[in-house]
Amino acid sequence: MNDCRLVFGANDSIKEGVILTNQVMQNFLYKRFLTTPDRVAFHYKGRDYSFADVYHESYKIAGQLTANGMKKGQFTGVLLKNNLETVFILFALQLIGVRAVILNNRLTSGEIGWQLQDSKAKFLITENAFDKVQTNIKYEFNDIITLFKETLAGKTNEPELVKEIALDDICTIMYTSGTTGHPKGVMQTYGNHLWSAIGSSLNLGLNDRDAWLCTVPLFHISGFSILMRSIIYGMKVVLIDAFDERAVIQLIHKEKVTIMSAVSTMLTKMLDDLDGESLPEAFRCLLLGGGPASRSLLEVCKQNGIPVYQTYGMTETSSQIVTLSPEDSLAKLGSAGKALFPSQLKVMNESGTEAVPNEPGEILVKGPNVTSGYLGHEEITAEKINDGWLSTGDIGYIDEDGFLFVLDRRSDLIISGGENIYPAEVEGILNSHPGVSDAGVIGMKDVTWGEVPVAFVVIKKNHDTCHDELESFCNEKLAKYKIPKRFFIVDEIPRNASKKILRRELRKMIHM
Amino acid sequence: MNDCRLVFGANDSIKEGVILTNQVMQNFLYKRFLTTPDRVAFHYKGRDYSFADVYHESYKIAGQLTANGMKKGQFTGVLLKNNLETVFILFALQLIGVRAVILNNRLTSGEIGWQLQDSKAKFLITENAFDKVQTNIKYEFNDIITLFKETLAGKTNEPELVKEIALDDICTIMYTSGTTGHPKGVMQTYGNHLWSAIGSSLNLGLNDRDAWLCTVPLFHISGFSILMRSIIYGMKVVLIDAFDERAVIQLIHKEKVTIMSAVSTMLTKMLDDLDGESLPEAFRCLLLGGGPASRSLLEVCKQNGIPVYQTYGMTETSSQIVTLSPEDSLAKLGSAGKALFPSQLKVMNESGTEAVPNEPGEILVKGPNVTSGYLGHEEITAEKINDGWLSTGDIGYIDEDGFLFVLDRRSDLIISGGENIYPAEVEGILNSHPGVSDAGVIGMKDVTWGEVPVAFVVIKKNHDTCHDELESFCNEKLAKYKIPKRFFIVDEIPRNASKKILRRELRKMIHM
Repeated sequence: MNDCRLVFGANDSIKEGVILTNQVMQNFLYKRFLTTPDRVAFHYKGRDYSFADVYHESYKIAGQLTANGMKKGQFTGVLLKNNLETVFILFALQLIGVRAVILNNRLTSGEIGWQLQDSKAKFLITENAFDKVQTNIKYEFNDIITLFKETLAGKTNEPELVKEIALDDICTIMYTSGTTGHPKGVMQTYGNHLWSAIGSSLNLGLNDRDAWLCTVPLFHISGFSILMRSIIYGMKVVLIDAFDERAVIQLIHKEKVTIMSAVSTMLTKMLDDLDGESLPEAFRCLLLGGGPASRSLLEVCKQNGIPVYQTYGMTETSSQIVTLSPEDSLAKLGSAGKALFPSQLKVMNESGTEAVPNEPGEILVKGPNVTSGYLGHEEITAEKINDGWLSTGDIGYIDEDGFLFVLDRRSDLIISGGENIYPAEVEGILNSHPGVSDAGVIGMKDVTWGEVPVAFVVIKKNHDTCHDELESFCNEKLAKYKIPKRFFIVDEIPRNASKKILRRELRKMIHM
Repeated sequence: MNDCRLVFGANDSIKEGVILTNQVMQNFLYKRFLTTPDRVAFHYKGRDYSFADVYHESYKIAGQLTANGMKKGQFTGVLLKNNLETVFILFALQLIGVRAVILNNRLTSGEIGWQLQDSKAKFLITENAFDKVQTNIKYEFNDIITLFKETLAGKTNEPELVKEIALDDICTIMYTSGTTGHPKGVMQTYGNHLWSAIGSSLNLGLNDRDAWLCTVPLFHISGFSILMRSIIYGMKVVLIDAFDERAVIQLIHKEKVTIMSAVSTMLTKMLDDLDGESLPEAFRCLLLGGGPASRSLLEVCKQNGIPVYQTYGMTETSSQIVTLSPEDSLAKLGSAGKALFPSQLKVMNESGTEAVPNEPGEILVKGPNVTSGYLGHEEITAEKINDGWLSTGDIGYIDEDGFLFVLDRRSDLIISGGENIYPAEVEGILNSHPGVSDAGVIGMKDVTWGEVPVAFVVIKKNHDTCHDELESFCNEKLAKYKIPKRFFIVDEIPRNASKKILRRELRKMIHM
């Protein structure tokens, strides 16, 4: 609207004279509690919890957190297992306006320490299960108070609730890596989460019999976004701690699940277990994310009547941004669909202009669910987001009917069992070993995990660093899923003129 | 979040360094066309129109409008009958970023002229049916170009589409009166309409079999909001030019209507026609607005299995803001429900503090669907809207479970067959008659219309103004539904110390 020449000042009066009320809303959980307190919010380990239950539990914890010194506007690390108590804690933080830096359960002490310091967190909420990991965290800059879930109840007070939230206030931080080493904290605002939920409901529909099964990690946006949908929609969520195909299929039947989020690995296991049996008719959507699915997998689902909706999203888009609509799910098998109603999508070719239909290029996305940037990294933010358009680094094309086909998540990104592995991060660790002069990491196809990371390493002269040593070195510094499954000792890492690793040359070396 | 002391500047970087992308979205119709072009958008006079049809028709008209000189950012009056062509014209205006001042079909030339001049409209789009009304409009200030729909096609060009809209940009203006005479233009932004549709869907649910019957005027927010839901949801709308109970019931069956908006008068007629017969099971919601419904009417509906959802809303809230949820429709018969998810509600008692449960007072509402104010009237806006809270002037209470019961729309407001009549406006006209020294107008109960206006008039000494003369005087200046059905000649209009009319004294005079 930049070139809009106003006939008179009506628009000005909106912007200057009046408060922009569309930026403020009631705290989502509090509002949901006021609106439908008796509806089932969660089914967990055989028991139903109403929105009133969830609100009261979260309120109680909010009191414990403020009694321990937590204050509105602060950041806190959250390192917790996947269960209902974690849900209560995450909601408690929203009730008192504390921003959650949600930590992947599989990170090492070093990785956790880095994320906590980068986000300037004042607290870390964790539990006894992570005792060892917690003990080994070293903080270089600031003091961080650790609160163990098991002893939280020791202190309590009446928390001051943040009953109104600003939609552009930060709700959560989730770290992702890029091509440049250290992970960066993606800021997800209340508005980002709200618009993500709205975009999904405008595409998938919504009814009072909906129940969304959550078996994906709560520390990923895939899982966390289900919690947000629960309170925004007033919808039942069936929560299980960890994926198990048998348990999932039983719950789908017993709890009348209508929607579930999954990655290919899970779907494959479910299909094996189902062995040709179908799912109940009420089960209307299996939302399949975490990288492009194979055509053969999609075809088996089609034959078995599993309603798979391929979707494309990332931490930066607060979950789905492109999803295949009901009417196109069969005709456009293999496509991720079209941008959800609030969002936009385009593909830019190598010469920097918008691609024509079917021409591959980098995928760019825009919308109110897209992050406003990386915490404390204005420069990287400005590099990645222009006029609201986020450069995803992923490669794909849009066909003549407007459907997105994702060819490759970020040329270098490795997706292993739904977890993202950024080669640059692993390479950084390998390069920090005294015996290593250069390293390159790529993904290798794997039957179970889709992909696993493998490393190419150049050993310094007069060093005899062996495979085992490299592995145990990584073991100390990297979450298990990021540790290369194989190490190839090579003379040189192929690089282009600007010293960028030529990963396709590495792939050739192992005949992929 | 005003007292939020940030630990460091993360939040600042959102506000200053990065564009707030949640303020920008694709033009809704254009986006819907891109997303689901083949879905049915409208059923009208026996024919289905897809979203592609609607887009192409609107695009064509957009070209005709720009060829006639219309430019982005301008305001235009729209005085058109209720039909599909009007829908195309209203969407065409959105495609080129022109703000529609939507005019009630029943207004007189004088009323129309006033609204066009107050909004500084550059154009008036009308049709031959309003030829006489149009001819009699007198403009005192500015020149307004009249375009007749029938001759629009004479000129055309390739319109420059506004593909991205700012959510805080004005989409429509609808005039409402207040206690102070002249009507005021309520600014409804794209964001207001979007949030209204979202709030409704989060409450009523949404599925791909939904079809919303529109038999309420498109120049009211009740009808216009259905058009907006169509493009935002991708939902079929069954449109009829004018309410007819038999035609409505037939269409509900034939077109598998699931939702319809109605006022009590319509519902009563439908019940008579149904004569105990029920509506199809797929018909899941009759959204009943336009003032509090009688308990007896609601009970008859309950007996006949008509799923009535009472709702409360107004032009200033871009349609519904409070609606009764599915699970409470029986237990809370007669309540308007709770505030929709994005919105808030409170009742203030006479001493200016928030009312306790069951205590009546003035209803205040807040939310992203609430207007940012009255066009060109900053002072009145500031008077009516504080910290985002709009004082509705309506009276009600919230019970101990949080449900709103509306006791009275604005103590002086008359609702006649779903049309709002503002006594102050009618009194202003009466007082302008040379033979009248004072006038007071109130609503009188009426079997057919709910209420009709009646006037109390003090005749000047030495004048012998009679009933007939007053009626024909009103006939020239007021829309038919606003003309008092009876005139009582009185010696004095009862007024309080501050000269405010004591309407309850007037009511006593006719033993109501």
